[in-house]
Amino acid sequence: MEEDRLRALLEEVRLGTTPIDEAVGRLRDLPYEDLGFAKLDHHRSLRNGFPEVIYCQGKTLPQITAIAGRLRERSHKVLATRATPEVAAVVRSEWPDAVYHEAARIVVVPGAQSEPPPAPNCRGTVLVVTAGTADVPVAEEAAVTAREMGSPVETLYDVGVAGLHRLLDHKERLFSASVLIVVAGMEGALASVVGGLVRQPVIAVPTSVGYGASFQGLAALLTMLNSCASGVSVMNIDNGFGAGYFAHLVNRM
Amino acid sequence: MEEDRLRALLEEVRLGTTPIDEAVGRLRDLPYEDLGFAKLDHHRSLRNGFPEVIYCQGKTLPQITAIAGRLRERSHKVLATRATPEVAAVVRSEWPDAVYHEAARIVVVPGAQSEPPPAPNCRGTVLVVTAGTADVPVAEEAAVTAREMGSPVETLYDVGVAGLHRLLDHKERLFSASVLIVVAGMEGALASVVGGLVRQPVIAVPTSVGYGASFQGLAALLTMLNSCASGVSVMNIDNGFGAGYFAHLVNRM
Amino acid sequence: MEEDRLRALLEEVRLGTTPIDEAVGRLRDLPYEDLGFAKLDHHRSLRNGFPEVIYCQGKTLPQITAIAGRLRERSHKVLATRATPEVAAVVRSEWPDAVYHEAARIVVVPGAQSEPPPAPNCRGTVLVVTAGTADVPVAEEAAVTAREMGSPVETLYDVGVAGLHRLLDHKERLFSASVLIVVAGMEGALASVVGGLVRQPVIAVPTSVGYGASFQGLAALLTMLNSCASGVSVMNIDNGFGAGYFAHLVNRM
Amino acid sequence: MEEDRLRALLEEVRLGTTPIDEAVGRLRDLPYEDLGFAKLDHHRSLRNGFPEVIYCQGKTLPQITAIAGRLRERSHKVLATRATPEVAAVVRSEWPDAVYHEAARIVVVPGAQSEPPPAPNCRGTVLVVTAGTADVPVAEEAAVTAREMGSPVETLYDVGVAGLHRLLDHKERLFSASVLIVVAGMEGALASVVGGLVRQPVIAVPTSVGYGASFQGLAALLTMLNSCASGVSVMNIDNGFGAGYFAHLVNRM
Amino acid sequence: MEEDRLRALLEEVRLGTTPIDEAVGRLRDLPYEDLGFAKLDHHRSLRNGFPEVIYCQGKTLPQITAIAGRLRERSHKVLATRATPEVAAVVRSEWPDAVYHEAARIVVVPGAQSEPPPAPNCRGTVLVVTAGTADVPVAEEAAVTAREMGSPVETLYDVGVAGLHRLLDHKERLFSASVLIVVAGMEGALASVVGGLVRQPVIAVPTSVGYGASFQGLAALLTMLNSCASGVSVMNIDNGFGAGYFAHLVNRM
Amino acid sequence: MEEDRLRALLEEVRLGTTPIDEAVGRLRDLPYEDLGFAKLDHHRSLRNGFPEVIYCQGKTLPQITAIAGRLRERSHKVLATRATPEVAAVVRSEWPDAVYHEAARIVVVPGAQSEPPPAPNCRGTVLVVTAGTADVPVAEEAAVTAREMGSPVETLYDVGVAGLHRLLDHKERLFSASVLIVVAGMEGALASVVGGLVRQPVIAVPTSVGYGASFQGLAALLTMLNSCASGVSVMNIDNGFGAGYFAHLVNRM
Amino acid sequence: MEEDRLRALLEEVRLGTTPIDEAVGRLRDLPYEDLGFAKLDHHRSLRNGFPEVIYCQGKTLPQITAIAGRLRERSHKVLATRATPEVAAVVRSEWPDAVYHEAARIVVVPGAQSEPPPAPNCRGTVLVVTAGTADVPVAEEAAVTAREMGSPVETLYDVGVAGLHRLLDHKERLFSASVLIVVAGMEGALASVVGGLVRQPVIAVPTSVGYGASFQGLAALLTMLNSCASGVSVMNIDNGFGAGYFAHLVNRM
Amino acid sequence: MEEDRLRALLEEVRLGTTPIDEAVGRLRDLPYEDLGFAKLDHHRSLRNGFPEVIYCQGKTLPQITAIAGRLRERSHKVLATRATPEVAAVVRSEWPDAVYHEAARIVVVPGAQSEPPPAPNCRGTVLVVTAGTADVPVAEEAAVTAREMGSPVETLYDVGVAGLHRLLDHKERLFSASVLIVVAGMEGALASVVGGLVRQPVIAVPTSVGYGASFQGLAALLTMLNSCASGVSVMNIDNGFGAGYFAHLVNRM
Repeated sequence: MEEDRLRALLEEVRLGTTPIDEAVGRLRDLPYEDLGFAKLDHHRSLRNGFPEVIYCQGKTLPQITAIAGRLRERSHKVLATRATPEVAAVVRSEWPDAVYHEAARIVVVPGAQSEPPPAPNCRGTVLVVTAGTADVPVAEEAAVTAREMGSPVETLYDVGVAGLHRLLDHKERLFSASVLIVVAGMEGALASVVGGLVRQPVIAVPTSVGYGASFQGLAALLTMLNSCASGVSVMNIDNGFGAGYFAHLVNRM
Repeated sequence: MEEDRLRALLEEVRLGTTPIDEAVGRLRDLPYEDLGFAKLDHHRSLRNGFPEVIYCQGKTLPQITAIAGRLRERSHKVLATRATPEVAAVVRSEWPDAVYHEAARIVVVPGAQSEPPPAPNCRGTVLVVTAGTADVPVAEEAAVTAREMGSPVETLYDVGVAGLHRLLDHKERLFSASVLIVVAGMEGALASVVGGLVRQPVIAVPTSVGYGASFQGLAALLTMLNSCASGVSVMNIDNGFGAGYFAHLVNRM
Repeated sequence: MEEDRLRALLEEVRLGTTPIDEAVGRLRDLPYEDLGFAKLDHHRSLRNGFPEVIYCQGKTLPQITAIAGRLRERSHKVLATRATPEVAAVVRSEWPDAVYHEAARIVVVPGAQSEPPPAPNCRGTVLVVTAGTADVPVAEEAAVTAREMGSPVETLYDVGVAGLHRLLDHKERLFSASVLIVVAGMEGALASVVGGLVRQPVIAVPTSVGYGASFQGLAALLTMLNSCASGVSVMNIDNGFGAGYFAHLVNRM
Repeated sequence: MEEDRLRALLEEVRLGTTPIDEAVGRLRDLPYEDLGFAKLDHHRSLRNGFPEVIYCQGKTLPQITAIAGRLRERSHKVLATRATPEVAAVVRSEWPDAVYHEAARIVVVPGAQSEPPPAPNCRGTVLVVTAGTADVPVAEEAAVTAREMGSPVETLYDVGVAGLHRLLDHKERLFSASVLIVVAGMEGALASVVGGLVRQPVIAVPTSVGYGASFQGLAALLTMLNSCASGVSVMNIDNGFGAGYFAHLVNRM
Repeated sequence: MEEDRLRALLEEVRLGTTPIDEAVGRLRDLPYEDLGFAKLDHHRSLRNGFPEVIYCQGKTLPQITAIAGRLRERSHKVLATRATPEVAAVVRSEWPDAVYHEAARIVVVPGAQSEPPPAPNCRGTVLVVTAGTADVPVAEEAAVTAREMGSPVETLYDVGVAGLHRLLDHKERLFSASVLIVVAGMEGALASVVGGLVRQPVIAVPTSVGYGASFQGLAALLTMLNSCASGVSVMNIDNGFGAGYFAHLVNRM
Repeated sequence: MEEDRLRALLEEVRLGTTPIDEAVGRLRDLPYEDLGFAKLDHHRSLRNGFPEVIYCQGKTLPQITAIAGRLRERSHKVLATRATPEVAAVVRSEWPDAVYHEAARIVVVPGAQSEPPPAPNCRGTVLVVTAGTADVPVAEEAAVTAREMGSPVETLYDVGVAGLHRLLDHKERLFSASVLIVVAGMEGALASVVGGLVRQPVIAVPTSVGYGASFQGLAALLTMLNSCASGVSVMNIDNGFGAGYFAHLVNRM
Repeated sequence: MEEDRLRALLEEVRLGTTPIDEAVGRLRDLPYEDLGFAKLDHHRSLRNGFPEVIYCQGKTLPQITAIAGRLRERSHKVLATRATPEVAAVVRSEWPDAVYHEAARIVVVPGAQSEPPPAPNCRGTVLVVTAGTADVPVAEEAAVTAREMGSPVETLYDVGVAGLHRLLDHKERLFSASVLIVVAGMEGALASVVGGLVRQPVIAVPTSVGYGASFQGLAALLTMLNSCASGVSVMNIDNGFGAGYFAHLVNRM
Repeated sequence: MEEDRLRALLEEVRLGTTPIDEAVGRLRDLPYEDLGFAKLDHHRSLRNGFPEVIYCQGKTLPQITAIAGRLRERSHKVLATRATPEVAAVVRSEWPDAVYHEAARIVVVPGAQSEPPPAPNCRGTVLVVTAGTADVPVAEEAAVTAREMGSPVETLYDVGVAGLHRLLDHKERLFSASVLIVVAGMEGALASVVGGLVRQPVIAVPTSVGYGASFQGLAALLTMLNSCASGVSVMNIDNGFGAGYFAHLVNRM
């Protein structure tokens, strides 16, 4: 609880305009709401400035629409991640203005207010880079997330280290971005190579793409954690949403 | 190679002021230097704007001083990380103006030029937070690194989640930092808690502090990778240097 | 074999009222029953005071109903855990008074005797806490188990550390419980935070909820085993039944 | 913060006997103390009713004595765990009334107040059982911890399952305890066997005793987590302190 | 190649009754047969005295019947393990005297010769013990294998350590067997308990029965490898066939 | 970029026959092509002398045919690996001269030019050896790959170490090959045995064939990496393509 | 407790020659002895026919000599395994007739009785085979153990699969043994090769010999568990004692 | 055994010039020698054309010199790998012409014959590349091994991917080698980058250089096994000897 609001409340108590019982309640009354199975954190958009995100995997359709509905009532923009086409169809039948980013598996339900929020002040562009074609879904999850939070986003796909000239040909794009997200499966070496080229922060996302001793992304994860290039930090396997979110935190002013 | 220098060189070729043989050589001649066992990357300070870093572990004393000597000749500031007291003593006998940050295990040899470089333009302060006392060496490595690169740094130690009020009492410091580094061993839960409180980027560093099923930092590493809080990215176990470096990349404008 | 019964039997041997052959047999004749594929342990309800539990996973429908039938004949209450809706339907067609707790995946077949057993003497309430919505099935398994064994149970769901105020708002409930079960997947940090707040025993249950480097609950398991808070013990991944059982053992007087 | 104290403070604010600035300070002023490298949590003895514990491993001798000194000034009893003989010698030279439990590697510095605290009201006895001789140090750590917190403690050592009669011969002791701690390395099967015999809560502690594929306690840890007996919960490898602490939480009324 | 046959062949060469070319060929001509995808090892029944075994998993129906057909032509008895009901149906439509042991997932095609082989000379009985009902398929695979090879086999199922009296009640059977196979999943403690009771060789078979941190049998495997009881050796997870085979090797005279 | 072409280009710049802007472009213009989701690397056939390979797993049918189409336009021979029958059917409906190697799961679309490329100059024959029948698909992937690249290939299947004479009978074939590929699952011991027999390079490919503690090929992988025989190098689990490719690199002159 | 002794005791109770109190005591009084830190299991030599074994690792010198002393008083032969030269020196200063098998790290203290026990009736010879020189200590531990228990033992060292002829040259010795122990580190392939050659039981012992991805014996352990040869069972890493013990159980009649 | 010698021997048997007993012996008598603890494989130099290699780790000084002595008597060149300076000093005191390659930890004892063996016919040069300075010892082990076997060897050290221009500047050297060995620790990405650049076989050697989640080389090992570049095969962690040996096998004609 912020100090200013605390002082104001105590002042009211001192003046007698707020009874003690009410003060006790307000000291405790943070703005969230209980749906029984999920506690909605309306306060988060105050604290973090961003919409509530529904991670759809492991939730039922009714749970997803119930959560989205309450958030929408409060005018929040909602991002539903890991949304299957079925989830998207149901959400869009409820809110026709919702948009489904199929490759990214994200449904965006725009906020209810008539005017868009002012664009955040950003350092520059977030560049999302992938090693292969199979890494694109995770990359798109990152790109859509960062874009919906307010960052300009560009993408550069299929530039893995097996054909280094494909990457080096785009050095200007790598150099001109303000933050880079590198998405790679298999051995994940692209993160180290990009990290060695640029002087901007690089967010590495291992993907579960691969076979055999890739162990569902473990190989790429270890590669990225041990990167010999400085300036590389790592997200969980396949966590495109986290990378896009973190990239926007770095990119906004 | 940047396009401008390429154009200039081709222009010289066209004008005949640069012979083709020389042009071939210059197209290839990037400014690094070969010591036999190590290729010094003087160019890195151009590319990245930062000094060369010597990772001392696994290098002999003569190797360390040889590398440091060549870098110093080129006026670079040198950070020698994972420096034991022996390494520090030898380096300081060579360059008396070198400073040993013992807790951080870093020796800093200042650059040879008489004037300090202009301070970089930073967003704000990097705050380094630890869960326990045993995490302090890694935290200090992060703090010294970020500070030497030009970021203002503050620290907040021993505020682990077993006594949550110790952390919550410092919410203002958490909220006012521009980037946070959370250093924790054992179960590493502090990163999730801090990540849930603030809206700034959080860089999580697992440490090898712990015993039993902590498996030399693996438990904390997995905890941080799976953080339920958005806005958390992860470094390798005990990689305080990487965290400080990454934090400064995020913090500078 | 308890000493009292042993003495009584030996006394009978001494008096000649029990022949030696019969004594040998009774010394060996513990009250269990052989169904061929499973040895029913009727004695367990004597030894432990609790009903027999059928772990349904990996058993066929005929096996489950055969075991339940024999137990029911002996008037035991039966808990069938990890029961799919199919299992529940079959059991309830056999014993219409059986109750299916769907979220908990438990079928309870009440004991045959007309009068309920006297309520056990309990310390207080078992509080089951989850980090997220997806952890609820495991939590419900714990809650139903403890409740069927005789403990008063309350639940507090979706109070993970990413929104710490959601948890702190319920400190009274945390403080007033006599035992707490904390159910969490992903990074499992909630157990450490709750363990640091309360002075009651905390039983931590990692769940397989998560993705990527959560490795089907391994990350949460390691987190909980390494908890920096004292007073936390750990169950197997997704073992809600075990947590409820253990919590009742702690709670009863 | 407890509601009673909050109400009292607000009442004072209303009455004007406490100025707002002071109220803000007191609302924030939880009783802990900052030694620079460690934040002492005097409040913990209020919250938890137990002394502060110093985990010595990874702390320097001056750090240990500094922390112990401040705690002692506040009259707290101090338990220093994982204390080497060197640590014990230094602590005892400072506080001659300190007692070193060598097998348990714990130094106890009694509280400064003249009168002992009233004995807690306990359910019964904590019984600490080991599979082998090499498990004794971890068992002693558990026993000393529970005893210092106020529980009556008994021990039963070297009754591993390779000679089952050694265990069965002590069934009365197993049955009469109120809580059991089972400490075992190698394959850790003793926890399952004890858990199948008794109806009291069993706290299982895997130890790093073993070789080859025991993997420093991992084998015993997995065994205990997968125990087929209900009523068994698990601590981290070698975590005798945690087991003793948890056992006392369960044992006190 | 045995020395006797070698001497005989050389004698023929010396006598000129066998030309050198033929001798070279016979020295090389071991009796196996090539089906293209599989080399049948008819010689194995000479070397080992046992029938060829077809491990069905990963082989197509035509491959299985082709291999079985050739073996049958040579009068060998065939054991097809891991045989699904489909495999069994096809094999039995080809050879109506084949027998399908459904629980064991083994089809036995008897050898073509009219007279049964003389029963091997055995030490005694192989006793197959399981901890639970879910371990029975692996146990049956072991029992059928040992029986088909010529050993008398008995079984004792569902006597896991959670109800120790169920096991102890059968001590005579345990003591009177000449070899014991202990099949257990979850924590696998039964192998240690049986190994501590008997003085016969115990062959432990971990099963993939369990959940959570049992990791598909890894927990039971580690338990058994680290058994504190001497006289226990271990087979691969779920390898009932191997256990039955090894038990017969030990049991025959 | 090769030095010769660089010199030629610079010469043109010097002569003024190539304007600087065009030179800048050509210095950058490597011959690859962007399909949006995949960057085709036509240059690779220049750099490596081999056709582009499409790894089908994780790509959609339209993606596969689009990539194949563009490559075919450039007259490249195309190998599509891990091709299901569905993929093969679609590819062959597009290019009727495509051949599907079903066991190897490879579709080969021949290059468009009328004349075959000159056969490469090879050392000798690549011999592909398997331990069992279930290893054949991976072996066939290796064999087809090496053959399509231009190496003579022979195969020797089902000669695992459980019947050593089956292998030893073919020593001449082992000795006369110029490179050997050993494909084995389960414990993978065949690679060590072959590596100890021959003096040619042995490429070991672990397969995911096995069960229990084979952990999807991990056991065989570790076996091969630790081979006590010199002259053995290892590919990823199930990576038949990589083995065939590497074998041809070794075999060509 | 054996049935005969039980009947005899009950008969005495019936006859009144044994009072009930004494009968209760004797029913419980199994012959073991408590040293405080270790419960000596004198009964084991009755149950198993073999001497008590002291596993020295992790025990202090006084503990070892105390245990050995009590066992010696009861005339038992004592095997102290994993005995360092220091342990051996102390034991031999106490009992000059003790013998130290240095390579095996075993001290044997002969039993006190004047006459040797009758030699057990054995099937034949135990043959201990190693892959390399570095495996010899584990092999010697196995050999000494089996020999001290009464089995004839032979050894065949350094016959690893990298030079297969070294092994094949000794086929007669392999064929003529009644039980084989195969000790191998690195990739452990020798167990499969020997298992494929012989028709006797093979006991495989992985050793921690190796480097890199041998992971302290894990590679060899997995190899042996997954052996494609039937008739192979596995001991824990470096567990030479267990192998020798198990081999004797198999070998004796 | 080669067919020619077999035919010759049989011919002698037929002619009666060789008695059958002697023939049996010679059929068995492969030329190796038994030192008790190690079987020297003189035949290997015939089979493989290379000297015997002594892996010193885990062997005593007397064992090493005994083995070397016998090999020297047979005129073999001896490579002793993983030789500490102590080993080197002892060997050189015995054979003053021995050479110690300290960085490579290899002692070479030249063969006793007066004339050098004819240089093998090689394809070209083996190029050994390292990512960092700390990888040099493993690289030197590879370089010395390949050179002693007869291959021309060049080295290119410290060209890791964090400074890609350092590598690209040497493309001609990469392109002109006939075989490449890439030695890298940490994340091991260099192997993929080199493998993507060249069309020669690349042998990747992970090193145990790194910290934290590099897990003693596991991260680099997985990276290399999963390389997205074709033409890369992998050796065990730190296995420089194996890489040099394999590279020479590939390089010789």
